[in-house]
Amino acid sequence: MRPSGVITFTTDFGHKGPFAAVMKGVILGRFPDAKIVDLAHDIPAQWPPEAGFWVSRSYSWFPAGTVHLAIVDPGVGTERDIIIVVCDGHVFMAPDNGLLAQLIDRDADAAVYKLETSKLVLLDLPTPSATFHGRDIFAPVAAALAAGKVRVDEIAIPTQDWTPGWIDDPEVGAGRVTGVVVTVDTFGNLISNIDAHLVAGFAEPVAEIAGHAIRMHSTYGRASPGEYLALINSFGVVEIARAEGNAADGLSCARGAPLVMRDGYEA
Amino acid sequence: MRPSGVITFTTDFGHKGPFAAVMKGVILGRFPDAKIVDLAHDIPAQWPPEAGFWVSRSYSWFPAGTVHLAIVDPGVGTERDIIIVVCDGHVFMAPDNGLLAQLIDRDADAAVYKLETSKLVLLDLPTPSATFHGRDIFAPVAAALAAGKVRVDEIAIPTQDWTPGWIDDPEVGAGRVTGVVVTVDTFGNLISNIDAHLVAGFAEPVAEIAGHAIRMHSTYGRASPGEYLALINSFGVVEIARAEGNAADGLSCARGAPLVMRDGYEA
Amino acid sequence: MRPSGVITFTTDFGHKGPFAAVMKGVILGRFPDAKIVDLAHDIPAQWPPEAGFWVSRSYSWFPAGTVHLAIVDPGVGTERDIIIVVCDGHVFMAPDNGLLAQLIDRDADAAVYKLETSKLVLLDLPTPSATFHGRDIFAPVAAALAAGKVRVDEIAIPTQDWTPGWIDDPEVGAGRVTGVVVTVDTFGNLISNIDAHLVAGFAEPVAEIAGHAIRMHSTYGRASPGEYLALINSFGVVEIARAEGNAADGLSCARGAPLVMRDGYEA
Repeated sequence: MRPSGVITFTTDFGHKGPFAAVMKGVILGRFPDAKIVDLAHDIPAQWPPEAGFWVSRSYSWFPAGTVHLAIVDPGVGTERDIIIVVCDGHVFMAPDNGLLAQLIDRDADAAVYKLETSKLVLLDLPTPSATFHGRDIFAPVAAALAAGKVRVDEIAIPTQDWTPGWIDDPEVGAGRVTGVVVTVDTFGNLISNIDAHLVAGFAEPVAEIAGHAIRMHSTYGRASPGEYLALINSFGVVEIARAEGNAADGLSCARGAPLVMRDGYEA
Repeated sequence: MRPSGVITFTTDFGHKGPFAAVMKGVILGRFPDAKIVDLAHDIPAQWPPEAGFWVSRSYSWFPAGTVHLAIVDPGVGTERDIIIVVCDGHVFMAPDNGLLAQLIDRDADAAVYKLETSKLVLLDLPTPSATFHGRDIFAPVAAALAAGKVRVDEIAIPTQDWTPGWIDDPEVGAGRVTGVVVTVDTFGNLISNIDAHLVAGFAEPVAEIAGHAIRMHSTYGRASPGEYLALINSFGVVEIARAEGNAADGLSCARGAPLVMRDGYEA
Repeated sequence: MRPSGVITFTTDFGHKGPFAAVMKGVILGRFPDAKIVDLAHDIPAQWPPEAGFWVSRSYSWFPAGTVHLAIVDPGVGTERDIIIVVCDGHVFMAPDNGLLAQLIDRDADAAVYKLETSKLVLLDLPTPSATFHGRDIFAPVAAALAAGKVRVDEIAIPTQDWTPGWIDDPEVGAGRVTGVVVTVDTFGNLISNIDAHLVAGFAEPVAEIAGHAIRMHSTYGRASPGEYLALINSFGVVEIARAEGNAADGLSCARGAPLVMRDGYEA
């Protein structure tokens, strides 16, 4: 892998306090030419699946050779491992808590490693604090990988053993797929874990959510103002929207709401 | 125009999810030396005028040759055009929905273009998604312009036809100017669309808002704690503030509130 | 000091509007290679102590030669001075309102200067607006310092006279230290101004807050779910947390809450 020099951050730190900033300081001290992009910092506190969803759906828009850090870490300070995944020309690093399971599941060629603490002497790390591995381990390792100063296999060992994801993959039946709302965006659009290919064969795809049956359109602009619609969004998954409105408010739905896609509209 | 390499983003995406980040990924993949600055992401959802206000009042603080993207796009997925404006040595790109009308109105030398989709083959774009033109069209075009790889007239054609702004320009009478609150900042200051020059000739400028008559001061520090004041703010427009307090809360005013400036105080 | 080219921003501007962005524009116009990091923009409006706390606890994670701007400025537009502090190989700039007092108090070698307005002709500044010194003074001065175009002593004069901090240093007695909660993070952890060294000699450190007596652990993972714990956090101060929960909500505590550390647990 040829590094792009780009590093992305996905965390549940919120936009409060200097937590992401000091990680950037550590990286710039070790790799002054790093280009750091905040992917998302508003992941629900200590809930890895949304971080994994966004990382797995966003990474391909970054140049090959990008290092993606994802830190949602309910287990910080316990014995949990740190895993590194090499996949599709990108590198991913996260606590081994299921965060990267979706990514690994989606790509049969993903190579999974566990960070080998004993090998970190190569990187001259500080003694890690008990509570901020993002700053003390993730940031310096990312700087070294993004700068091309170490290779993944110099600091981590291959493994077949990782923590599974926290939310089930969609359940697929005949003419019927059952998934879940993974996140809600600023506009109130409900974003699910149902991939486009799972409904690609449907003649007349219909979404069932919160007691509504909602037809699929190709884009927001194809529905009348106030109308609910399902569509394949720009990240390749089924999304429930409301034309010129807020679907989450209108349907009283939030993260975790079940969503069924079926083939054929029945009133 | 000699590009500065700087690109600014103004959107209504909020600070939630990876939407701005994947645009940055696309830009860095095409122009690794881009310097991307988030101008504002908290524009009220699908309300272009505030985006246009901030872009037109902020751009001159960036180096000449900067590319300013402004994406507040209720019409994404419909037939709306994308316009590019070249003005005062800067380049601006937005949906043709009135967002850039204030900017164009303020500068008689502004050159307005419509993006010519057929010419985008030059840029080797992906097939655009129906719902995220920011990532699939705006970002790669901005990267090419900011890198100096294409000129505006290679990808867009001059036009005299664009969508007008959504809010009226201030109404100017004898000793009286009527405008509107465009936005409210973090401190509760009410920021209007009344330009300094419209009240420059007033001997004793007074603001009328929410039933109050408020005198003009040169700065916050000139008023007593708790006192309301009008001032010309650092972006060159009339602002209503409350010394050591929050004017929006105190006056129960928000975006859209009418504001009259008149010459001469009458209790 | 050899500049690192890095500039950090700490403000109370919030994440709304283009205020931080135009400062970045000014810096990039004067120093195109600047690397600007947002440290924190969510400082409570016009309350300098939290800004000073985070700057003094965060700066050392940035490369030596970094310029740290901290702008929480209730006195903008009045006669308050601007101070520059050189300390531990870093440069700090803030209004002289007590913001940097904690930093100065913690390092006997800190050199304190007052910005000398008459010397700013060197920098070809615009006429400053009355209300946005961040853009009109702080940003261009930071650009010049970070680019190595001027030295601190060319634009500022040494002083022994600065505004003291707004919150008292912890009160230290025999086996007892009394401090205060300075800020609350996204997870509801209560972060105090009690430095680790003040309790390092305690055999059995216990926190008293909001009527609770809370034992100290080495990390979050050492407590049972729902249990409160005190710990030395990654910024070197006492923090009150709740394992897999939110201490601020659970204890009904906020910024400003008094916190006592004592040696020895009594039920």
